[in-house]
Amino acid sequence: MKNYKEMSMEELRTEREKLLAAYDEYQARGLSLNIARGKPGDDQLDLSMPMLDVLDSSATLTASDGVDARNYGVLEGIPEARALFGEIMDVDPSQVIIFGNSSLNIMFDTVARSYMFGVMGATPWSKLDKVKFLCPVPGYDRHFGITARFGIEMINIPMTDQGPDMDLVEQYVNHDETVKGIWCVPLYSNPGGCVYSDETVKRFAAFKPAAEDFRIYWDNAYIIHHLYDEEIRIPNIIEECAKAGNPDMVYQFCSTSKITFPGSGVAAMSTSPANVEDILDKMKWQTIGHDKINQLRHVRFFKNLDGLKAHMKKHAAVIRPKFDAFLEAFDRDLEGRGIASWTRPRGGYFISFSAMPGCAKDIVARCKDAGLTLTGAGAAFPYGKDPEDSNIRIAPTFSSLEDIRIAADLFSVCVRLSAVEKLLAQ
Amino acid sequence: MKNYKEMSMEELRTEREKLLAAYDEYQARGLSLNIARGKPGDDQLDLSMPMLDVLDSSATLTASDGVDARNYGVLEGIPEARALFGEIMDVDPSQVIIFGNSSLNIMFDTVARSYMFGVMGATPWSKLDKVKFLCPVPGYDRHFGITARFGIEMINIPMTDQGPDMDLVEQYVNHDETVKGIWCVPLYSNPGGCVYSDETVKRFAAFKPAAEDFRIYWDNAYIIHHLYDEEIRIPNIIEECAKAGNPDMVYQFCSTSKITFPGSGVAAMSTSPANVEDILDKMKWQTIGHDKINQLRHVRFFKNLDGLKAHMKKHAAVIRPKFDAFLEAFDRDLEGRGIASWTRPRGGYFISFSAMPGCAKDIVARCKDAGLTLTGAGAAFPYGKDPEDSNIRIAPTFSSLEDIRIAADLFSVCVRLSAVEKLLAQ
Repeated sequence: MKNYKEMSMEELRTEREKLLAAYDEYQARGLSLNIARGKPGDDQLDLSMPMLDVLDSSATLTASDGVDARNYGVLEGIPEARALFGEIMDVDPSQVIIFGNSSLNIMFDTVARSYMFGVMGATPWSKLDKVKFLCPVPGYDRHFGITARFGIEMINIPMTDQGPDMDLVEQYVNHDETVKGIWCVPLYSNPGGCVYSDETVKRFAAFKPAAEDFRIYWDNAYIIHHLYDEEIRIPNIIEECAKAGNPDMVYQFCSTSKITFPGSGVAAMSTSPANVEDILDKMKWQTIGHDKINQLRHVRFFKNLDGLKAHMKKHAAVIRPKFDAFLEAFDRDLEGRGIASWTRPRGGYFISFSAMPGCAKDIVARCKDAGLTLTGAGAAFPYGKDPEDSNIRIAPTFSSLEDIRIAADLFSVCVRLSAVEKLLAQ
Repeated sequence: MKNYKEMSMEELRTEREKLLAAYDEYQARGLSLNIARGKPGDDQLDLSMPMLDVLDSSATLTASDGVDARNYGVLEGIPEARALFGEIMDVDPSQVIIFGNSSLNIMFDTVARSYMFGVMGATPWSKLDKVKFLCPVPGYDRHFGITARFGIEMINIPMTDQGPDMDLVEQYVNHDETVKGIWCVPLYSNPGGCVYSDETVKRFAAFKPAAEDFRIYWDNAYIIHHLYDEEIRIPNIIEECAKAGNPDMVYQFCSTSKITFPGSGVAAMSTSPANVEDILDKMKWQTIGHDKINQLRHVRFFKNLDGLKAHMKKHAAVIRPKFDAFLEAFDRDLEGRGIASWTRPRGGYFISFSAMPGCAKDIVARCKDAGLTLTGAGAAFPYGKDPEDSNIRIAPTFSSLEDIRIAADLFSVCVRLSAVEKLLAQ
């Protein structure tokens, strides 16, 4: 396909006419499509319906240690739930705390505890003049939302195909004691789909943080969320940190939000024994315990990691064609045009799209006008500001495959149209 | 029965011998009884088992507004859950926010939000030198645990049989701008079983707080938890505050923890529309939404307030005899002895017991040595300090009726023994 940047004005004008005609046709259809959020589709939610049959009125709701899961207590979660999440994260169950239905909630509360009470006896962040977090970009908008809400200064760290730019990260972490954390989605990153390399993970573990209360916020949201048969794994950060003499430096988060039901899953953290103790000691004032019946429901449904993996293959079979629909449209319409690049994730929930600089907002607006809602341009950056106005996050899971095909085609038209207009205006 | 205080030394020594013999018999039995916490018993938990059959894999998990309860979203709770809790608290559903499984968690988070972000634009408490809460005593230990954790100064307010000493409360609230809140369990108070009088509630509503961000923390934990046929109601605090021109002054909390399953219930807050907006605006960074399937499960099980009330009658039938077992033992052994008084609650979860001053810790220790665990003496007071060392909270619900009878008799022996020893030592 001809590179737009090599086209004459005449050719570009012809291309614009063609694209405008296509765009008008989409507008006339009165579409209402949404690829803004990483939400599972109905077809995925249906996969977990049998979980609702696992515990009925005839069930014995006793946890493996004999505790009645219906009553108060068990702040850290029932043993079998800690064991299952231990298997998922490859850590000892004693290093796992089970929470409620949302890992976002855990992350918010973890930052909140640090802000209010301090980490392991360190000064609470609310008493400090300046607290900074490193934010690999593009990244997860809700991570940045949390740190923004606490008035924490966010520093953009560019992503490479190996993970964050580690030279820059080390410079901050090891020399700036106001840097208290870094947000990471290390496997199938949101939105880039990046898999942190072994070397990257080991460099994380080997930090020599200037701040005693520096922590890695390791959001392993897609830890078993593979799109293809290949089960990509990254080094175990908990183990690596312990080996490097930094056992307390990392909090790892995961959940079943995109395994069972997003609103009714189970979320967990794994970390060092000392961190577990520090967290439970503060959490005990907040709650007597999370929903243990739901923990039991999950464990009895999946039984073990193999059960979970079999379930995830069903998810992959449903959503892989949706990712492919976008990738096929991009290969067909955009390859060689010189106006865009995109990721080819092997797991997770997003495709990260890089449009011609200065075009992202325009593309999102054009899509919106034709009935296709995208994540806001810039959302994947702290303060919602993409310095290049280039990145767009595509979340292809929620809609039906049929709608995703339409969305992909419409999006592709808007990308080209925006580029042509920009080139014509130059 | 003869008043111990009128007994001669000789009589007291004889009484001691008799009581010691009885006590030794209990000790020899190797008992393991626990009346420390307000936990429902197995027999109560069994009442809600049919709730687990309400949603199975064939159920349609769509909320009344068409939202799929399985997926992300709906921060404020599904409409039918807001409607049910609106019925319980007698407020418009729009004034209800549904949370997770624990009203304690809501209360902690409400204090935390005020501490971190401030109430409706007021200075966050973390930036103030001094914040105080009023604490009617005896009261709920976990309330005081929250305020203690935040370094909030707690001021004891004596309880009368009409509620807190309102002259004292008004003096603080209306004149001290560092007073930001008051903890209340207005109906069947924990542990006294007090029902706030109409006048008390109206005086609450009519505060003229010195602090713009003063709020009443109205923990209506036992709002439909009657022990007898009589359904005692207190004035609607939300309505009273609105009528008095203080619509934003109160946060009301309740939950199904002691209606369905303590670990797997649904908790809710009701408050003014402006507070709802203020809270959701901060909560949206913390979570995408709570467990909507569990909300749906509860609503479909109970259907409406009548369904809830019928269910609560079953609870009352189970626990009333347990309360009666204690009251009967007290009437039999302690009436007229001049060494104790106790409440006769019409609802809620506790009997509040006042021993001879200076005896509470001793009684708790004696019970412990004979295998009966009580709530720690002083637990119902801020900082765990009962100035009189007199109050003991009795939680008769968890154990079987048979065990409760033994516990009541043993407790009564320890109360008398402690008094006799004290009188002999004088």
